[in-house]
Amino acid sequence: MRQHKLALCALHYLEWVPEQVERTIHRYRMFTQQDRLLVAVSGGKDSLSLWDILNRLGYTADGLYISLGIDEGIQYSQNSLFFAQSFAETRHLHLHVVDIKKQYGETIPELAGRTHRGHYKPCSVCGITKRHVMNRVTREHGYSVLVTGHNLDDEAAILFGNTMNWISKYLLHQAPVLEANKPGLVRKTKPLCRMYEREMAAYALLAQIDYIQDECPFAQGSTSIYHKEVLNKMETDRPGTKLNFYLSFLQAKQNGLFSPLVDDKAAQVHACPQCGQPTSAPGLCVFCRMVAGSGNPISLHEDEP
Amino acid sequence: MRQHKLALCALHYLEWVPEQVERTIHRYRMFTQQDRLLVAVSGGKDSLSLWDILNRLGYTADGLYISLGIDEGIQYSQNSLFFAQSFAETRHLHLHVVDIKKQYGETIPELAGRTHRGHYKPCSVCGITKRHVMNRVTREHGYSVLVTGHNLDDEAAILFGNTMNWISKYLLHQAPVLEANKPGLVRKTKPLCRMYEREMAAYALLAQIDYIQDECPFAQGSTSIYHKEVLNKMETDRPGTKLNFYLSFLQAKQNGLFSPLVDDKAAQVHACPQCGQPTSAPGLCVFCRMVAGSGNPISLHEDEP
Repeated sequence: MRQHKLALCALHYLEWVPEQVERTIHRYRMFTQQDRLLVAVSGGKDSLSLWDILNRLGYTADGLYISLGIDEGIQYSQNSLFFAQSFAETRHLHLHVVDIKKQYGETIPELAGRTHRGHYKPCSVCGITKRHVMNRVTREHGYSVLVTGHNLDDEAAILFGNTMNWISKYLLHQAPVLEANKPGLVRKTKPLCRMYEREMAAYALLAQIDYIQDECPFAQGSTSIYHKEVLNKMETDRPGTKLNFYLSFLQAKQNGLFSPLVDDKAAQVHACPQCGQPTSAPGLCVFCRMVAGSGNPISLHEDEP
Repeated sequence: MRQHKLALCALHYLEWVPEQVERTIHRYRMFTQQDRLLVAVSGGKDSLSLWDILNRLGYTADGLYISLGIDEGIQYSQNSLFFAQSFAETRHLHLHVVDIKKQYGETIPELAGRTHRGHYKPCSVCGITKRHVMNRVTREHGYSVLVTGHNLDDEAAILFGNTMNWISKYLLHQAPVLEANKPGLVRKTKPLCRMYEREMAAYALLAQIDYIQDECPFAQGSTSIYHKEVLNKMETDRPGTKLNFYLSFLQAKQNGLFSPLVDDKAAQVHACPQCGQPTSAPGLCVFCRMVAGSGNPISLHEDEP
């Protein structure tokens, strides 16, 4: 690990990573042993490793897998569900499974194809859906905190994209902890936000975690992957670039660089009359509007395996 | 010009560039035909082209060349002075020349070698010196505005560096116009801030401006050149990246993204007892302290050719 000037054997590495994650949890006051956590798992290395680490650290954490219905010739959703379920079963952990098609009548590609005709990229629809479902399941089952597996590379790439375009509201919003500061919104935390992607890949390997190695087929050519490539090049040329970029951002923010005034609109919150989650305008939230267009009845109950 | 989706012949190009610069001057209210301008010229393509453009547009602009005493085997300062002087003589323009060695006793490399032993990179010393001299000459000769040739690539690279490290005070400070908001400080403007470097190179070529093509030998391997390379790669992959990065920053700033509070320290200004220029702490300013260490008497009068 060049940025830490550290070399560890396998055994110590499997101790070092959870220690680092525990530090991050404490530093940003993410949650305590008393919290009931829900981990959003995709079947990939980050979220499964995170779930593993939280359990090693003694936290109470169930999993949530959202089946998006993405096949694209590589059975992406089916395979990722397999890895998530195998992980949970082997370790006797509880995994909630929500199948988007069963619950809302359409897979993510179908939803995207109908609502965004012409430019067939389902990433926006997928993001809206996942945020909605994660928030809903966390609330319905009384979990106190939602935990996601975003690593440093993810966070740095998101920040880089928002910075290259200076999107104020996203810059104000990005943080290791998103507080439940609106009615109906759950607390979200990212305990891997200081861990490099390659550190998590090494952890998964050494901890013998089987995970889906394919990226989502729709992510190919995306701006966030392009930004990851740019940051990877910079990290190779100047080790520590990503960590410094992300941490100096958090520091500047804490020191009051940004004016809270520009996020005034975010203060106006309404409850969606259908799902009860917060939305910025009166009437149905963007998710319920999207799903309503399908003509399928919406089930607000969770679909368990 | 891919970012503008525009292709022009030589004749129209020589009209288009000054039009663009004039727009920038108006948009940011940089100066008017009534102002007496001082252009900082280095002998390079940007500053000489800028001087050329300002004269074509009918502005009253004299030049200032600062001889830094950088040789490094390629007679860098001597050659760049030659280009600046030739340009001025051919066009019957007035050029002030300040020779750092004659005026302050040491060249920039000598000053840097003495004050920064160990890490022999004179860029910081050079920046302090140039800012001091530019401000001094502008004031002494009663020019109303100092004009520099920073192009979009320069501004984007500076912004990129400050963003990758989230240096709040520099982010708050960067702008096309720096107001004379402290006693003893002159107004600074950058009329080329929206022009790509390659656009300025094309302009210099078509306008038959002879300029020094060498970069400063000390700039090699600098972070700002590295950041230019990163941005060049992104510009090639996604045309318009630099312009969008810089303009969206200015827009976000204008919309109030940044809190002025973090720049509180900048409000505390003292006058340097020796040169009279503003400094953040009581006592000699950083430039006068640096030069005082040489044991040479400081001349506060300008050195004319």
